[in-house]
Amino acid sequence: MQYDLISVDDHVIEPPHVWSDRLPAKFQEAGPHVVESEDREFWVYEGRKGTTMGLNAVAGKERKEFSMDPVRYSDMIRGCWDPVQRARDLVSDGVRGSLCFPTFPRFAGVQFLKGDDKELSDLCVKAYNDWMLEEWCASVPGMYIPMIIGQLWDPQLMAAEIRRCSALGARALTFPENPVPIGLPSLSTDYWNPVWEAVTETDTVVCTHIGTSGVVPSPSEDAPFIVGIALSPMASWSTCLDLIMGNIPRHYPTIKFALSEGGIGWVPFALERADRSWERHRLWSGVDDTLPSEVFKRNVSVCFIGESMGIEARYHIGVDRIMWECDYPHADTPWPDSQKEVAESLEGVPDDEVAMITHGNAERLFRWTTRPDVDALLAT
Amino acid sequence: MQYDLISVDDHVIEPPHVWSDRLPAKFQEAGPHVVESEDREFWVYEGRKGTTMGLNAVAGKERKEFSMDPVRYSDMIRGCWDPVQRARDLVSDGVRGSLCFPTFPRFAGVQFLKGDDKELSDLCVKAYNDWMLEEWCASVPGMYIPMIIGQLWDPQLMAAEIRRCSALGARALTFPENPVPIGLPSLSTDYWNPVWEAVTETDTVVCTHIGTSGVVPSPSEDAPFIVGIALSPMASWSTCLDLIMGNIPRHYPTIKFALSEGGIGWVPFALERADRSWERHRLWSGVDDTLPSEVFKRNVSVCFIGESMGIEARYHIGVDRIMWECDYPHADTPWPDSQKEVAESLEGVPDDEVAMITHGNAERLFRWTTRPDVDALLAT
Repeated sequence: MQYDLISVDDHVIEPPHVWSDRLPAKFQEAGPHVVESEDREFWVYEGRKGTTMGLNAVAGKERKEFSMDPVRYSDMIRGCWDPVQRARDLVSDGVRGSLCFPTFPRFAGVQFLKGDDKELSDLCVKAYNDWMLEEWCASVPGMYIPMIIGQLWDPQLMAAEIRRCSALGARALTFPENPVPIGLPSLSTDYWNPVWEAVTETDTVVCTHIGTSGVVPSPSEDAPFIVGIALSPMASWSTCLDLIMGNIPRHYPTIKFALSEGGIGWVPFALERADRSWERHRLWSGVDDTLPSEVFKRNVSVCFIGESMGIEARYHIGVDRIMWECDYPHADTPWPDSQKEVAESLEGVPDDEVAMITHGNAERLFRWTTRPDVDALLAT
Repeated sequence: MQYDLISVDDHVIEPPHVWSDRLPAKFQEAGPHVVESEDREFWVYEGRKGTTMGLNAVAGKERKEFSMDPVRYSDMIRGCWDPVQRARDLVSDGVRGSLCFPTFPRFAGVQFLKGDDKELSDLCVKAYNDWMLEEWCASVPGMYIPMIIGQLWDPQLMAAEIRRCSALGARALTFPENPVPIGLPSLSTDYWNPVWEAVTETDTVVCTHIGTSGVVPSPSEDAPFIVGIALSPMASWSTCLDLIMGNIPRHYPTIKFALSEGGIGWVPFALERADRSWERHRLWSGVDDTLPSEVFKRNVSVCFIGESMGIEARYHIGVDRIMWECDYPHADTPWPDSQKEVAESLEGVPDDEVAMITHGNAERLFRWTTRPDVDALLAT
């Protein structure tokens, strides 16, 4: 393997037992569980059927089959929901570390924010986090960087959960890229301060995945759907400026944010433009004098998949800010050809920078010093 | 002067007589006119007071005064509303060509779309266009590239106006970057086909200025306002993909679009990402096989102000696609230091490329072969 890869954006497909194994008897019926109905499988939660089973879990399929979302576990390759098989899949492609976002809870846990019974919601959040730590990650030591979800309706509860899980090994929190469209206070309020205090205290990375605001940046409902796919990094641009021109990293100077699945090619211009706006308007808008690009280079990391423009302009981003993502098992994944795609993106990049981008920056950001036993995985 | 500049994005402040000089007697009261009231001046149209007089017309002021929109002509420098004085201002800064967007009609003429009496709206559109051609542009031959507005509520009427004005010398049409938020059919419909046919037939450039959809890309209402300023180029990214992944330039292969005040630094990544999305999804989405980046390089032009990232990556955009803008008299303008700011942006660029970027591309796109008598302007 030419490249020693850690992916900072993959997606679990939760197996059916995640919540039913952990919820008390009184919540077995209301809590998330899988039923067979209408010739397919469904998640059912508080009596409502979910709309997707294996959202975009198309890895291993031909591209012409990409339009169909799998609606049964048996429609997906085993690596979607089995952490050991996934680890085999990934290490055979040179990927020896992986940070996984949730699917049924939605990428930032918004599913449980929407729950009617907040006692159940709280237990569902904790059940997911326990499963992530005790089963998904523990099943292949050294492979999966533990990421948790939080109780978005109660920042104090969320802060306590961050501290609880950090003590158990959690390294990352998934958080909405923009809380406003989902009905929560913005990043310009102090509502979230308990969360920022907890992640700063525990050195937990806050990961904001594209799409977690619930808003898809498309010019119109009838625009070709690929326009929305191609525009999706705009969401990270917006989050980035909300952070680096706003108050959070200025008040919590050691806080760590990672913009997930947002790409990197927009960053040089975004920073240049942010600095220019800052420079031209700060005199009358009363903001402080730390340049947005300086905040970025201290507090924000980004990741790429199959792109070369941002790599070419990497010195304007900061080589230490750039990580790689595999996006397994979604349609964008290069798996099982990650080595080839990474080689195309990193052509001409010096070895020391390749090491930072492919794994070193992720190791540092997430304090991830372990590796899976690759030989044992490949032997089974 | 080191650089021979044409600006493809400036803004007129209409003098008070534009409509009252041209509307018939029965519309004098309902048509746009200026009144003194509440210790300031207002535009009044169909009995409603406008909210701004000289929107952002702050050229010539200190930056710390930028927050106040001028509310009287006498609060603005004369070049805001006097084309001869403006030409003196610009040529003394090395800018010998200028494309001006409207202010009271709003940048894409949406003011008259909102009018109650469409007979009056139609006359207001024609009055603006006649004033632009007969007064603003004619007062300094060779200086101003004539841009017109259209009857957005009636594409057939708009097509006729494009043909009428083209015969009188118009070279450009201002058009909303996205018609959907202002209540009009999207760029994915065939509603606008009469317009595309007229602009193609007359070789009129369609200019989509940021902000003309009425949507400001800000993460939240309480985000620092400079976040919205810094994010404003996202609107052009969205328009760009709507065009190059959509049908219009594929059906009208000679059509010319210019993305106005949208910057250029986002373009390399936007094209790379669009091509990747196209490549990965076209097999099952039934679209044709012309890459979005090829459509861009045939049908779309962009412009920059005070940025260097896009210039550094210019070969990924196409040197023939890049123009410069002065944004006179808005807060972003480098005037009266355009030469200095352009020098910073174009440092290290070869002379032949500088000639294309500073004026050659604009001359070709807008078929603009004349120049003002600079010596005569500076002598007065």
